[in-house]
Amino acid sequence: MSENTRIALGVEYLGARYSGWQRQTHSLSVQAELESALSKIANHQVTITCAGRTDAGVNAYEQVVHFDTVARRKDDAWVLGVNSQLPDDIRVLWAKTVTPDFHARYSAYARYYRYLIYNRTVRSALNYQQACWYYPLLAEDLMHYAAQHLLGHHDFTSFRAAACQSHSAMRAMYVVDVIRQGDYVIIDVCANAFLYHMVRNIVGVLMAIGSGKQSPDWTLQLLAAKNRSQAGLTAPAQGLYLAGVYYPEHFGLPKHSLFNRLPSDIKRYD
Amino acid sequence: MSENTRIALGVEYLGARYSGWQRQTHSLSVQAELESALSKIANHQVTITCAGRTDAGVNAYEQVVHFDTVARRKDDAWVLGVNSQLPDDIRVLWAKTVTPDFHARYSAYARYYRYLIYNRTVRSALNYQQACWYYPLLAEDLMHYAAQHLLGHHDFTSFRAAACQSHSAMRAMYVVDVIRQGDYVIIDVCANAFLYHMVRNIVGVLMAIGSGKQSPDWTLQLLAAKNRSQAGLTAPAQGLYLAGVYYPEHFGLPKHSLFNRLPSDIKRYD
Repeated sequence: MSENTRIALGVEYLGARYSGWQRQTHSLSVQAELESALSKIANHQVTITCAGRTDAGVNAYEQVVHFDTVARRKDDAWVLGVNSQLPDDIRVLWAKTVTPDFHARYSAYARYYRYLIYNRTVRSALNYQQACWYYPLLAEDLMHYAAQHLLGHHDFTSFRAAACQSHSAMRAMYVVDVIRQGDYVIIDVCANAFLYHMVRNIVGVLMAIGSGKQSPDWTLQLLAAKNRSQAGLTAPAQGLYLAGVYYPEHFGLPKHSLFNRLPSDIKRYD
Repeated sequence: MSENTRIALGVEYLGARYSGWQRQTHSLSVQAELESALSKIANHQVTITCAGRTDAGVNAYEQVVHFDTVARRKDDAWVLGVNSQLPDDIRVLWAKTVTPDFHARYSAYARYYRYLIYNRTVRSALNYQQACWYYPLLAEDLMHYAAQHLLGHHDFTSFRAAACQSHSAMRAMYVVDVIRQGDYVIIDVCANAFLYHMVRNIVGVLMAIGSGKQSPDWTLQLLAAKNRSQAGLTAPAQGLYLAGVYYPEHFGLPKHSLFNRLPSDIKRYD
């Protein structure tokens, strides 16, 4: 009997056509498409586990998944083979054979999300599935200032969705950057883990600050309030990207340069 | 009886869903969608004329069109009204009331096209409708060097499609820039007018040069050969954008900064 090998994959996808990451009976999901393609290449039924389940319409620059297989293939052959079976809006970026103790979700020390706001008078015909359109001119410097209040260990109750099932709202925020590139305002956030809708709620709050509807210290007030009914709108899904997942270096996975800013004594979130 | 007013529009669109610019009986076209939206806002049947008809899958940052109407609306009201009637992948960027002698096609002195190559090992799940994927690493500096041979007045016979119906292949090339931005290689070309498939054929030739299959002087040899069977592949439609159209300043239309590089004695192409 063949032994199982564990493989990790980096996966890019456009969320527009999908009801989300998770496999569902009556709607399209990224997980089902990827499992179907992997099963063809592995010649047996493959089940995958991801680092972070994304909602309907949410995209990924680099989701990470793992699966076990009795098939023997070189890492690059998994990439080429699986991509030949995938729809245009899902792509495997890399594959890496990992030790059996690697787990895409539980081995992760930090998650990195990027949010793209297209800040122009007229909505874009070109990126309407890849960014969130926001009409009032945003002051990205004020947004960046306001975002710095979120750094460190905080109770993020004001930024979680009503449906969030996490037992604790304490999270460690490592990076919150807001920059402008032409008509785009780009928000990068990195934390040990995120509550449900936490990134989209942070972005909603920062947009209210950037457009002058709220003061730059509103983030501070919301953290102190610990009341989810006080924060602003949840920013729409199509601007959100899971941009990277950080694992301890001994697993040997590709590492996004943003993770060089993580504290050296970082530990796994429990 | 009301008098006609002539209106010019700047239009952005994603070409993926359309069989091209031109209205057709049994397939989707950008022209038909835009005429339908304009007719609702004008309360009468509107026919539009564009600066340059684009092929199936080709995009536009700024196509220019004109139409005549008896309706009286402010320029901004045309933008808001028509956009409320358009599908997500077509957007009017601006509207401007123009003098009756303005003609979107015949008043144009120069056209500007941009071509986007996504130059990465793995095809993108995010921009597969907005750029052309090319796998071998491209030397953008060699491509830029090779492209400079095309500047000036030349017979572009080697770069026209077999189906091209233009009586002359002489064109004046004003700008050909090749630059890299991360994984993108961006090609900007500006000429008085273009032959059928001329931009996509130029890009096909430059990709062969950038990947080392041809020498950087191949552009020069092709110009001299005046033989369309010698050039390389036609680059795919999804990377191509009509990026701007230049009209004499007295029409008062928005002007792309690239047109500041046009010769001061530029005249209309006949």
